[in-house]
Amino acid sequence: MDFNYDVIVIGAGHAGCEAAAASANLGSKTCLITMDMNKIAQMSCNPAVGGIAKGQIVREIDALGGYMGIVTDRTAIQFRMLNRSKGPAMWSPRAQCDRAKFIWTWREILENIPNLHIWQDTVEELLVEDGEVKGVVTCWGVTFYARCVILTAGTFLNGLMHIGRKMLAGGRCAEPASYHLTESITRHGITAGRMKTGTPVRIDARSVDFSLMETQDGENDFHSFSFMSEPRHLKQLQCWTCYTNEEVHAVLRSGLADSPLYNGQIQSIGPRYCPSIETKIVTFPDKPQHQLFLEPEGETTRELYLNGFSSSLPMDIQFAALRKIPCFRNVVAYRPGYAIEYDYFDPTQLTHTLESKVIKNLFFAGQVNGTTGYEEAGGQGIIAGINAHQNCTGGEPFVLGRDEAYIGVLIDDLVTKGVDEPYRMFTSRAEYRILLRQDDADMRLTERAYRLGLAKRDRYDMLCRKREMIQHLVEFAKVYSIKTDKINDTLESLGTARLAHGCKLIDLLSRPQITIENIAPHIPAFQAELDKVTDRKEETLEAAEVLIKYQGYIDRERMIADKIHRLESIKIKGRFDYANLNSLSTEARQKLIKIDPETLAQASRIPGISPSDINVLLVLLGR
Amino acid sequence: MDFNYDVIVIGAGHAGCEAAAASANLGSKTCLITMDMNKIAQMSCNPAVGGIAKGQIVREIDALGGYMGIVTDRTAIQFRMLNRSKGPAMWSPRAQCDRAKFIWTWREILENIPNLHIWQDTVEELLVEDGEVKGVVTCWGVTFYARCVILTAGTFLNGLMHIGRKMLAGGRCAEPASYHLTESITRHGITAGRMKTGTPVRIDARSVDFSLMETQDGENDFHSFSFMSEPRHLKQLQCWTCYTNEEVHAVLRSGLADSPLYNGQIQSIGPRYCPSIETKIVTFPDKPQHQLFLEPEGETTRELYLNGFSSSLPMDIQFAALRKIPCFRNVVAYRPGYAIEYDYFDPTQLTHTLESKVIKNLFFAGQVNGTTGYEEAGGQGIIAGINAHQNCTGGEPFVLGRDEAYIGVLIDDLVTKGVDEPYRMFTSRAEYRILLRQDDADMRLTERAYRLGLAKRDRYDMLCRKREMIQHLVEFAKVYSIKTDKINDTLESLGTARLAHGCKLIDLLSRPQITIENIAPHIPAFQAELDKVTDRKEETLEAAEVLIKYQGYIDRERMIADKIHRLESIKIKGRFDYANLNSLSTEARQKLIKIDPETLAQASRIPGISPSDINVLLVLLGR
Repeated sequence: MDFNYDVIVIGAGHAGCEAAAASANLGSKTCLITMDMNKIAQMSCNPAVGGIAKGQIVREIDALGGYMGIVTDRTAIQFRMLNRSKGPAMWSPRAQCDRAKFIWTWREILENIPNLHIWQDTVEELLVEDGEVKGVVTCWGVTFYARCVILTAGTFLNGLMHIGRKMLAGGRCAEPASYHLTESITRHGITAGRMKTGTPVRIDARSVDFSLMETQDGENDFHSFSFMSEPRHLKQLQCWTCYTNEEVHAVLRSGLADSPLYNGQIQSIGPRYCPSIETKIVTFPDKPQHQLFLEPEGETTRELYLNGFSSSLPMDIQFAALRKIPCFRNVVAYRPGYAIEYDYFDPTQLTHTLESKVIKNLFFAGQVNGTTGYEEAGGQGIIAGINAHQNCTGGEPFVLGRDEAYIGVLIDDLVTKGVDEPYRMFTSRAEYRILLRQDDADMRLTERAYRLGLAKRDRYDMLCRKREMIQHLVEFAKVYSIKTDKINDTLESLGTARLAHGCKLIDLLSRPQITIENIAPHIPAFQAELDKVTDRKEETLEAAEVLIKYQGYIDRERMIADKIHRLESIKIKGRFDYANLNSLSTEARQKLIKIDPETLAQASRIPGISPSDINVLLVLLGR
Repeated sequence: MDFNYDVIVIGAGHAGCEAAAASANLGSKTCLITMDMNKIAQMSCNPAVGGIAKGQIVREIDALGGYMGIVTDRTAIQFRMLNRSKGPAMWSPRAQCDRAKFIWTWREILENIPNLHIWQDTVEELLVEDGEVKGVVTCWGVTFYARCVILTAGTFLNGLMHIGRKMLAGGRCAEPASYHLTESITRHGITAGRMKTGTPVRIDARSVDFSLMETQDGENDFHSFSFMSEPRHLKQLQCWTCYTNEEVHAVLRSGLADSPLYNGQIQSIGPRYCPSIETKIVTFPDKPQHQLFLEPEGETTRELYLNGFSSSLPMDIQFAALRKIPCFRNVVAYRPGYAIEYDYFDPTQLTHTLESKVIKNLFFAGQVNGTTGYEEAGGQGIIAGINAHQNCTGGEPFVLGRDEAYIGVLIDDLVTKGVDEPYRMFTSRAEYRILLRQDDADMRLTERAYRLGLAKRDRYDMLCRKREMIQHLVEFAKVYSIKTDKINDTLESLGTARLAHGCKLIDLLSRPQITIENIAPHIPAFQAELDKVTDRKEETLEAAEVLIKYQGYIDRERMIADKIHRLESIKIKGRFDYANLNSLSTEARQKLIKIDPETLAQASRIPGISPSDINVLLVLLGR
C-alpha cells in the first residue's frame, strides 16, 4: 500500500471528520487515521447537536460544504428551535440524535468520499524536518508521509480518567489513551497544557419513574440543520426534566473530601459552562435545587443521558445522591459519571488558518486547541481541512472574519486571546450577532465555499435561487401599497393597530404582531408571490421575514463591522520590531511578540493591548 | 445502586450475551459486565454466522430459547444452506451479517430482558472464599457480590497482538486487554494456558477490481435460523472469490523470517482449521493457489473482510502479497491482519455444566475454554447461564447428551478430552450426526428448555403444532396407497422408475428423485393434507421429508445411542479411588484422577483410556 498522502488527519472525532472530508472533497489525497473505526464521530458526551450559538456553527459548517448538519438531520430524534421568543439573532436549532446512527451515518459518508482513505491505528510520532511536518508514525510502525498533518486528537492525548480517588488511563470510557504524540510535538517547542472535562452517569430507562418528571417535547416541525436536507417527518422522542434537592446536595457534599476536583487530584480546569454537579453545589451553596435533563440516547436503546449531573465524585456518592431524587429512587445505571484530563496545545501558537506558527504544515483543530463542544470542533475541523488543502496546492489561506461567521469569532478568539479554560461558543462572544444568524449562514458563506470548490454546484444553485426569491419578496414588500379599508379589520383581529392611512407592505411586516404567514392570506397579490416559492419554502420565507423585520439592526451592525474592517485591512505582521518599541507598555510588547498579529484589528483584540497601544502603532504606521 | 446479583457475567461476547440472557430469563438477577457497550456481541473476526456444524449449533441455541439465531435472522445480508447436495445431516445454514446491526440488535434485546442489568467496566479480580466464588471487583473499584460468576472474557485476558515483529497489548484491535483477572483465577489452582488466533486485512471496496473475481450469491429463499423468526424477504448481498498465486506465495515466503508464527515470537497454538495464509503456504508448499473469499461487512459500509488471508506477517509483506493478486492490484486497506495471543483455562477442570471443579459457582464459557467460533461460544454460554441459574435456585444440572445436541458433543469433548489447540466444531466430531440435524433442533431441545422455563409457551406451542403436523404427514404417507396407473407417467417424468404394482406413499418418497414438493401435486389427497399446514410450512415439510427419507438411518443411530446410554447411566464419580486401582494402567489412573468422569461412558471417551480399562471398572462395579 501507498502511505504517501497530501493530508493526514489524526483522529476521527467531530473535528477530524470535517477536516478529512473538506481536504478530500477539495481534491487532496487524504488519510483519516482513527484508533477505532466503530467510534467515528462518537458523541462522547451528550447525544445532542446544536443549541445556542452552537446551532449557528452547525449551519455554517453546512453552508461551507461540511457534514455535521446533514448527519444531524439524518439521525435526529428530537428537534427544537431554541429562543424562538427572542430576536432571530438568538434563534438556535438543537437536536437530540441517535448516538449509534450518528456514528454509522458519518462513517458511511466518509467511506464514500473520493480521495479519502481511513486507516485504523494510533499515531505515536510526528515526523518533523527543518521546522516542517513530514508525516506520522503509528503504533503498528507504519510511516505515513504527508504534505500536511491535522491533529484532532480530542481528549485522547495522555488521557487520565477520574472517579473519586480512582484514576485510570484512557481517552474515553473503555478506550485506550494515546501516548508519545504530545511529547513528539512539544519537543519542537510547542507548548502543551492540561484541561479537564466530565460526563454524567448513563441510566437504564427501566429504572426511572417518569411519572415524577416533566416532559420536554420536540417541535412539530423539523427545521433541518442542513441547507441541503430534504424535509422529513421526525418522530419526536421526549426528554424529561427533574430537579436535585437539599438531600441530594447533602450527599454530594459528604463526598467532597474524595472529589478529585476539590482534593487537589485534578489541577486542570474544566468547562465553566458545563460544571459538574459538585461544582454547582460548591459555587452556589444557597441554591436549593438544580435542574437536570434526561435525554434519550437513541431510538432503540434504553440508555439515557442525565444532562446536568456530570460528576467525578466517588461512585457510591453519585448513586446515593441520585437516589435522593424521587424519580431515581430505584435507579440502575450502565456506568457512572467521570472526569477526564487531557493535553491541549496553546492555540495562540496558531495562525487564523489553524496552522502552527512553529511547525509548518501542521494544523490543530478541536479539543486539542482547548475548546469544548462538537460544534466548535467541527467548525475548526473544516477550516483546518480547507487550509491544509490550500497549503498543498499553494492556494490562498481561507479565513473567516468575525463578522462572517461564529467560526470566525471562535478561531480569532483562540489564536488571539488563547484559552485558560475550555472554550465554548456563546452568542455573547460575537460582536455582530445580528449578522451571524442561523437562517442566513448560507448567504454568508456558501458563495465563498463555492468559489473555493468545497460547496458544490447544486448547493450554490440552491443558494442563488433562494437569494433571488428573498430579494424579490423584500422588493415586493417595499413597493407594494396597502390600502386602509382592505386591511384594517385584519389588523385588529391580529391584535395590532388599525392604519390611519395607506402604507407599504414592508411597514406592516415590521410590526411584531404581523408575520408573512398571518398577513399574506389577506393580501392576494402578496400571497401570489409567495405561491411562486416552491423550493424550501419555509426556510425562504423565514429568511425573508428576518430581513424585512430586522433590516435596520442588520444595516447598523454591517456599518460598524465595515468600520472595523478598516483596521482589519491594516496588515502589521512583520512591520514592527516589538521588542524595541519602548513607547509600548511592557505587557503590550510581550503580548504582541507572542501573538504576532496579522492586522491592527487583531492586535486590538489581544487581552492586555490597550487603545493607546493601538494608537502608538497607528502613529508609527504614519497615520 | 445495589451491586448484589444472583449471577455476574464477565464479558458481553457471544458466550456472555447468551449466558446473561439465559440466566436472567430464567429469573436470576443478572449483571452483564462489559468493557464497552458499543461492542456487545461484536463479531471479532468474519461477519458471518453458521456454516457446517456451526449452523446446527445456532439452531440448537435457538431451540433452547437463546438469541443468536434471532439476531442473525434480523441482521442477515446473505443466506445460504450449505451442503444441500449431501444428506440432511450435513445441511447447515450460514449467513453473512451486518456487523454493526448485529451489535445493536443484540444490545436492544439485552437491554429489554427483565432481571438483566448491563454495567460497563472491566473486571480485575475474582472474589473467592473457601473455594466458592463470591463476586468480582472492577477496575473502577466496584465490588459486585453474586452467587455465581460466569467468565466469558474471549481473547481479552492478557491479550497480546502481533504484526510481524511488532507486538501490542490489547484484547482486540483498538481495544485494551484485561489484566489481573487471570492471575486472580490461577491463584486458586486453576490452570491457564495461552492460545492464538488471527484475523485478516479489511479492505476498502472502492479499491477492488470486482471484474476479476467470481461472485458467490446467496440463495433466493431465506431459511431462518430461528424457529421463531417470521420469514422475511432478504436483499441478498454478494460475496466474491479469488485465488492466491505463486507470486503471492513468493512474497509471503520472503516475510517468514519476520513471521511471529515462525520466528518463535508466538509459542501458542492457533486454530488448525482457520490457518493463517503463511501457515497454508508452509504446510502445503506445493499448492499453487489458495482460495480467498471477500465478504461484505454490512449494508452501508464499504468495508470488506478477506476470508482466508488471516496473517500476522509484517504489514508491508501482507500488502505486497495482496497486490500480486490481480483484483487487488490497487488495494487500499482499513487495517492489516494480525494475530492475538490470549489466556485460556484448561476445560478439563470443568464439569458438564461448565462449572469449575476447583471454585464452586464459577462457570467458564467460550474462548476462555479454548474454543474458537461465535457459535461454539454461544452454545457454551447458554449452558453456563442455565446452570448458573440452577445453582442459584438449587435446580438440577442441565446437561445435553452427545446424542441430543452438538452443544452436548462440544462440552463433553471439552471437559473430557481437553484442548491442545482452539477447538472448533465439525460434523465429524459427532457420532450421531443423523440425529443432530439443523431441521429438528427444536424437536430435540425445545421441550427440555420449556420444562426448564427458558423456552416460553409460544415457542413450545409452535413446536407441538409442528410435531403434530409432521407426525400426521408421516402417518399419512405410511398408510396411503399409490395406484400404478395414476402415478407412473409422473414418475417417469421425474426420472424415476415406473411402479410395477401399487405401494405406499412413503415408499415413493424414499426415492431420491421424489420430493414432497414434486409429487404432491399429482396426489390430490396428499396435497390436501399439505394444504392444512399453514404455520411455517416450508420448515414443516422439510422436517417431514427428512423423517420419511432417512427414517432407517435415524432409527439405527438412535439404537446405537441408546446402547451407549446404558454406559452413560452407570455413574462412577466418587465410587473409585483411582490412585490405588493397580489393575489400571498408570496413564489411565492419571487421566481418571484428572477428569474424574461422571459416568462410565464419559470415562470411555477420555483420551488414553482403553476398552480394557473400562472393563476393569465394569468388573469392579460387579457387572
